Amino acid sequence: MSEQASRSMGVATVRRLPLYLRELRARLDQEDAYISGAVLAQGLNLDPISVRKDLAATGVVGTPRKGFPVEALIEAIENALGWNNVTDAFLVGAGHLGKALLGYPGFRHHGLSIVAAFDVDRRLIGSKISGVKVFHVRDLSRLARRMHIQIGILTVGGACAQAVADVMVAAGIRGIWNFTPASLRVPAGVVVQREDLAASLAVLSHRLAEATGGAR
Amino acid sequence: MSEQASRSMGVATVRRLPLYLRELRARLDQEDAYISGAVLAQGLNLDPISVRKDLAATGVVGTPRKGFPVEALIEAIENALGWNNVTDAFLVGAGHLGKALLGYPGFRHHGLSIVAAFDVDRRLIGSKISGVKVFHVRDLSRLARRMHIQIGILTVGGACAQAVADVMVAAGIRGIWNFTPASLRVPAGVVVQREDLAASLAVLSHRLAEATGGAR
Repeated sequence: MSEQASRSMGVATVRRLPLYLRELRARLDQEDAYISGAVLAQGLNLDPISVRKDLAATGVVGTPRKGFPVEALIEAIENALGWNNVTDAFLVGAGHLGKALLGYPGFRHHGLSIVAAFDVDRRLIGSKISGVKVFHVRDLSRLARRMHIQIGILTVGGACAQAVADVMVAAGIRGIWNFTPASLRVPAGVVVQREDLAASLAVLSHRLAEATGGAR
Repeated sequence: MSEQASRSMGVATVRRLPLYLRELRARLDQEDAYISGAVLAQGLNLDPISVRKDLAATGVVGTPRKGFPVEALIEAIENALGWNNVTDAFLVGAGHLGKALLGYPGFRHHGLSIVAAFDVDRRLIGSKISGVKVFHVRDLSRLARRMHIQIGILTVGGACAQAVADVMVAAGIRGIWNFTPASLRVPAGVVVQREDLAASLAVLSHRLAEATGGAR
């Protein structure tokens, strides 16, 4: 896929790419060389029209009656996501949510490797959580620079989120995955991806109200 | 707000409503009676055009030079989200992620109260996590029916996600907040809101690649 094609993808398409990747890898294990958009849509319980659009956005061309070449699709999607190269990340805040993320087995498949965790709790510092060592937050800046870390995962309380984000940015981190409720202010060129539980709950509440005719 | 207005809101608007709500409640505490869309946008670091569109979707009418009445906006947004009534929810899977959600202080402000947790781990059953009692999963069906539970939060491993979802649906649960990587199959009328970390990471990776010109 050309870099240009990747850049013009919409967010909805990008969000579905990991689903395709998981399904396509399973198909490859079953030695399926080709897959049709319709079969992929059915397997993932997705709307066939969206799937057709998404596959077109990868730039991979299908063959009539055979479908899309599975290996080429996997490669194109991995390229689009940058997941063919694993990116090292730091996680700050080793509470329950931080521990849940450190124990999440899927990140490595998704091009992300959490190489160190940070906290201020003395009981945690020096320990390992799911194989990842916990350091004091004051070591973050030095280690991030030395290891050229690009991604920071923020799982601290909302009150110190901005302060930690500032340290991350000063240490050269370019992408912050923000699991706190705080609205972070960062300089241009730094990307913040917000994982907003309240927003998701809003969508669920709204859809549930719709589905039940507002009779909650 | 009319029910019709609420139903026609787009997902992007619905996802922003909790942000507005938090800011508007803070303004009300400061005894601000009116707020302009531009001020709201600036306070939340959002695009003013989106904010203006979202506020229009609430059905609340602004006054020239004064802006929107804060209390009326709060009420309209709470209505749209159904957050003026707290909905009881069950959480299944009291691992790290489950514990993180049980400890999340914000849900009650967002109309959600987790009233019981479920697991199969004997060491957890009978204990309380953040004040919420943990039961064996086999009690889920009976308790959900008795308590008329509408929302189930799924924080089990992917392998048993579908089985637990089936139990939830059979017990009358109408909305499932799915934190597992599984694609759930549910009957029509049941809403699944997927919290897909891989999808979010995809968006972060993609945006980071864009911001750094693909030079990762």
